[in-house]
Amino acid sequence: MGTVALDSVQTPFGKTKNALGGSATYFSVAASFFSKVKLVAVVGTDFPPKFLNFLQSRNIDTKGLQIKKGKTFSWTGRYSYDLNNPQTLKTELNLLAGFHPRIPSGYQNERNVFLANIDPHVQLSLLKQLKSPQLVVADTMNYWIEHEKKALKQVLKKSDILILNDSEARQFSQEANLVKAARHLLNLGPRLVIIKRGEYGCLLISKTFAFCIPACLLEKVLDPTGAGDTFGGGFLGYLDGCRKLNEASLRKAIVYGTIMASYVVESFSLNRMRRLKKNDIQARFKQFRRLTRF
Amino acid sequence: MGTVALDSVQTPFGKTKNALGGSATYFSVAASFFSKVKLVAVVGTDFPPKFLNFLQSRNIDTKGLQIKKGKTFSWTGRYSYDLNNPQTLKTELNLLAGFHPRIPSGYQNERNVFLANIDPHVQLSLLKQLKSPQLVVADTMNYWIEHEKKALKQVLKKSDILILNDSEARQFSQEANLVKAARHLLNLGPRLVIIKRGEYGCLLISKTFAFCIPACLLEKVLDPTGAGDTFGGGFLGYLDGCRKLNEASLRKAIVYGTIMASYVVESFSLNRMRRLKKNDIQARFKQFRRLTRF
Repeated sequence: MGTVALDSVQTPFGKTKNALGGSATYFSVAASFFSKVKLVAVVGTDFPPKFLNFLQSRNIDTKGLQIKKGKTFSWTGRYSYDLNNPQTLKTELNLLAGFHPRIPSGYQNERNVFLANIDPHVQLSLLKQLKSPQLVVADTMNYWIEHEKKALKQVLKKSDILILNDSEARQFSQEANLVKAARHLLNLGPRLVIIKRGEYGCLLISKTFAFCIPACLLEKVLDPTGAGDTFGGGFLGYLDGCRKLNEASLRKAIVYGTIMASYVVESFSLNRMRRLKKNDIQARFKQFRRLTRF
Repeated sequence: MGTVALDSVQTPFGKTKNALGGSATYFSVAASFFSKVKLVAVVGTDFPPKFLNFLQSRNIDTKGLQIKKGKTFSWTGRYSYDLNNPQTLKTELNLLAGFHPRIPSGYQNERNVFLANIDPHVQLSLLKQLKSPQLVVADTMNYWIEHEKKALKQVLKKSDILILNDSEARQFSQEANLVKAARHLLNLGPRLVIIKRGEYGCLLISKTFAFCIPACLLEKVLDPTGAGDTFGGGFLGYLDGCRKLNEASLRKAIVYGTIMASYVVESFSLNRMRRLKKNDIQARFKQFRRLTRF
């Protein structure tokens, strides 16, 4: 559950207008390479049928995608050569403003839930509709930390895993040191905190172990939009297919998240994902092992 | 060979005045945990005997350390909470200005050479005095890239391995992408380029393979001064003790460099190194394996 958006993005390497985007979109498409995804979100009647077709072609269940009269949420942003930090030029909430997620019948017993970046009140509203999820993974962003910290803390209480980037972890915890920041966040509920560091990789911190890897070495990065959500999709998608949730599967899931993110940034919007094959993922996984082993 | 200095450093966590510093100092002390180091540098008569004693207590051969009438090179700098980028407040070259490295008799056949950060003309002058070194590792910094690029290119031609940080790699190559930057540098002579990324770890790129690791996760970083030189010391010190220079030993050497750097930043100047034991190094090596394996 999260946003499905129409993005207009400019980077030093090109631009898009009203391209497919949104936190739940990136998540779902990445996760669809590993498991069956049920998408919960809202779009307007302006949402191009070809985008809906693409999601369905990825075998994503779109029964939970509300199509309402009005305009789809839209984000306009620009990246300079520092591809880690976009500049938001325009955010048009449109239908997202009054979004109440409603899960279709048959979804109540879902085990694994990804709360992609969206208003934490909406994340809480979704959680209330689920009976007893096994694994709740929540993502968020600086805006909610600044403006909705109370609701966000409620989300953390009900989450097993929190995913956020390094500056957000520092902002939330008021700790410059990431290990201390993660410990602060672990005390608020989640069993695991995953801190994303953009091109520098990511780290996972629990009360019993830590795991840290670099990102893939890429020569071509055209558009980093959605990299974090795609990471989440690879991460939870892989875990969903694992029989056991243990340290070993969590470490591998982090690597699969990293691999999926490395593909999505190679092109604008989700274009690279359209021609991605399972073999590509395995090939880059092996390559990543070679990159990091000693 | 490089600088031995008296550093005055301020960070958000404390400060030092005329503490032991310099690129060759950090390198030598780190390397001394793995092999026998022969130091070539210059200091003034103001250089405290206790510092000389410390170097000798680390079994570092100081026959090549010239003690001249005058003042020792001195650096004054300040770090804010962004510990990756120091602000230089004062650089007093003093005796370093007229430094001509002279290697003592018996040093001509040294196999492994570390040209720590210093004027590239001085690096070239040292190389001329060696018969046929097997492995020349050169470090440098932004100042020489900007002001002495021609001499630096001569150094690269004669070097096997170049170590520099990410912004310097970009500056030298005029390439924003690090893989492309490394390829540019590989074309200028070295067989391997090591790019340091501060708290984010480092990467090694050759024409046949790449290796990339994060840094150690530290809760306590008091003073990052000398981390890069210490990395070099762990790296070449470990390699010096290896029978073979191959991909496997290079990867391990990078990890040992990372481990040594993780210790030096835990305290000001070289204070942490004074009480460091070989066992500590092995313990953190194992810890690092756990941190990164999947």
